[in-house]
Amino acid sequence: MSDLLAVLVNGESGRDVSTLDRGLHYGDGVFETIAVRAGTPLLWNRHLRRLQAGAARLGMAPPRGDMLKAWATRVCAGHDRAVLKLIVTRGIGGRGYRSGPTTPTAVVLVYAWPEYPPNVQDGIAVRICDTRLAHQPRLAGIKHLNRLEQVLARAEWEDDFGEGLMLDQTDYVIEGTMSNLFAVIDNELRTPDLQACGVAGVMRGLVLETASAWLPARVAPLRSKDLMRASEVFLTNSLIGIWPVGKLVDRLLAPGPIARRLQLALRAHYVEG
Amino acid sequence: MSDLLAVLVNGESGRDVSTLDRGLHYGDGVFETIAVRAGTPLLWNRHLRRLQAGAARLGMAPPRGDMLKAWATRVCAGHDRAVLKLIVTRGIGGRGYRSGPTTPTAVVLVYAWPEYPPNVQDGIAVRICDTRLAHQPRLAGIKHLNRLEQVLARAEWEDDFGEGLMLDQTDYVIEGTMSNLFAVIDNELRTPDLQACGVAGVMRGLVLETASAWLPARVAPLRSKDLMRASEVFLTNSLIGIWPVGKLVDRLLAPGPIARRLQLALRAHYVEG
Repeated sequence: MSDLLAVLVNGESGRDVSTLDRGLHYGDGVFETIAVRAGTPLLWNRHLRRLQAGAARLGMAPPRGDMLKAWATRVCAGHDRAVLKLIVTRGIGGRGYRSGPTTPTAVVLVYAWPEYPPNVQDGIAVRICDTRLAHQPRLAGIKHLNRLEQVLARAEWEDDFGEGLMLDQTDYVIEGTMSNLFAVIDNELRTPDLQACGVAGVMRGLVLETASAWLPARVAPLRSKDLMRASEVFLTNSLIGIWPVGKLVDRLLAPGPIARRLQLALRAHYVEG
Repeated sequence: MSDLLAVLVNGESGRDVSTLDRGLHYGDGVFETIAVRAGTPLLWNRHLRRLQAGAARLGMAPPRGDMLKAWATRVCAGHDRAVLKLIVTRGIGGRGYRSGPTTPTAVVLVYAWPEYPPNVQDGIAVRICDTRLAHQPRLAGIKHLNRLEQVLARAEWEDDFGEGLMLDQTDYVIEGTMSNLFAVIDNELRTPDLQACGVAGVMRGLVLETASAWLPARVAPLRSKDLMRASEVFLTNSLIGIWPVGKLVDRLLAPGPIARRLQLALRAHYVEG
């Protein structure tokens, strides 16, 4: 597709992976999506730590951090604004779920910066997806390659919404298809618990840490009705930074002071516009 | 790995797929594992129908059945006993979960026949896995490429068991990591319901149809304690056919008459030994 700018496979040029890769057969791996500004991957150390933590949960050893950093730096060079995607799979395997010793496969891709909807700072329109997130504590929180739930959820709408929220099967709101969710309720910042499902975003972690200096900020279960009485709702990820929600199903909201203050505080860590 | 004999990608020779394939990025696809005898993929029509049904559930159109058949026939030629694996992904995509129109990627692999444990007809030893299957009705029953649950479950043991059973999170027994489960209880054949999780195997369907001429055979919830009073327990898939369970955790069982009768009735449809 036209948005790819460069790719390295285990540090070498090449646009392909083996048909025997366990990433293809089973989604047996993890990934990171990282904003690039002025040739530099932002929040690199946080992304690397999450990748390593996810790989450990799957019982695999990713390539050394300094090698990943070198490959990432190489593909990002010369790109003022771009998206870095880092995929690490368990590597090439034989047939069957059981894995012998493998050498991980690292795919480092750099894409053109996406065209996000205009005026996102005025607040985006958000829907509730029909596709629910399954409870799977063994995989919850990590950014693994089994992403069919997100694919099905994102296929539910076209361009008429900026994001879709996903509930779990007990009607708790967990996250967006590609973002984490925050709400300001009773002067407290809340974001859903991700022990049973969801992806613990790098920007989510940074937002929780930053905001906790200003107001009570905690992980807490959220239901749709809680969102309907929130004074602010916003979404986060490493590319979009912080997007205020301007319309949640039928409810109109104004972008609020907490989202704005977070945007100002964290602007060095993401790519504006 | 040394067990691969041949591979075609969209009908062409080649051992690689694009790093942009949605199968790698999201596990966005389906697969079939098919026994090959005397150069012929067994139960082809049933496998094709399940592949097509799974692709439809994911909103993708696989290549035409006659093309898949031609490719399968080509890679299987000359192999007396082998395993055919057919992977169909949504194809190459841009960054992000949303998919525009794509051309599916079909990977057709043929592997050497596996070395199964000896004396499986005397009954295999089966354990209960710690990894549970999540409830996800949108994906239940189909053989999709999001298989981390099976990878984690299979990593729990070495060679000391022939298979591991997986429970769901409400303590129902659903299936093995790579097989479906049957039990004869009160002179009735039962296999778990797969509306919330699990893969509806081709051999499972054939066993249900065949056995229902001899005894009541139905889909019904099963718990571990039900298995402990079953007169027979056996496992099925397209490669192993029917494997009697000889030891279930601590309980010893003898291979029973229903499993034996099914093996005789279905021997044309799988590869013995």
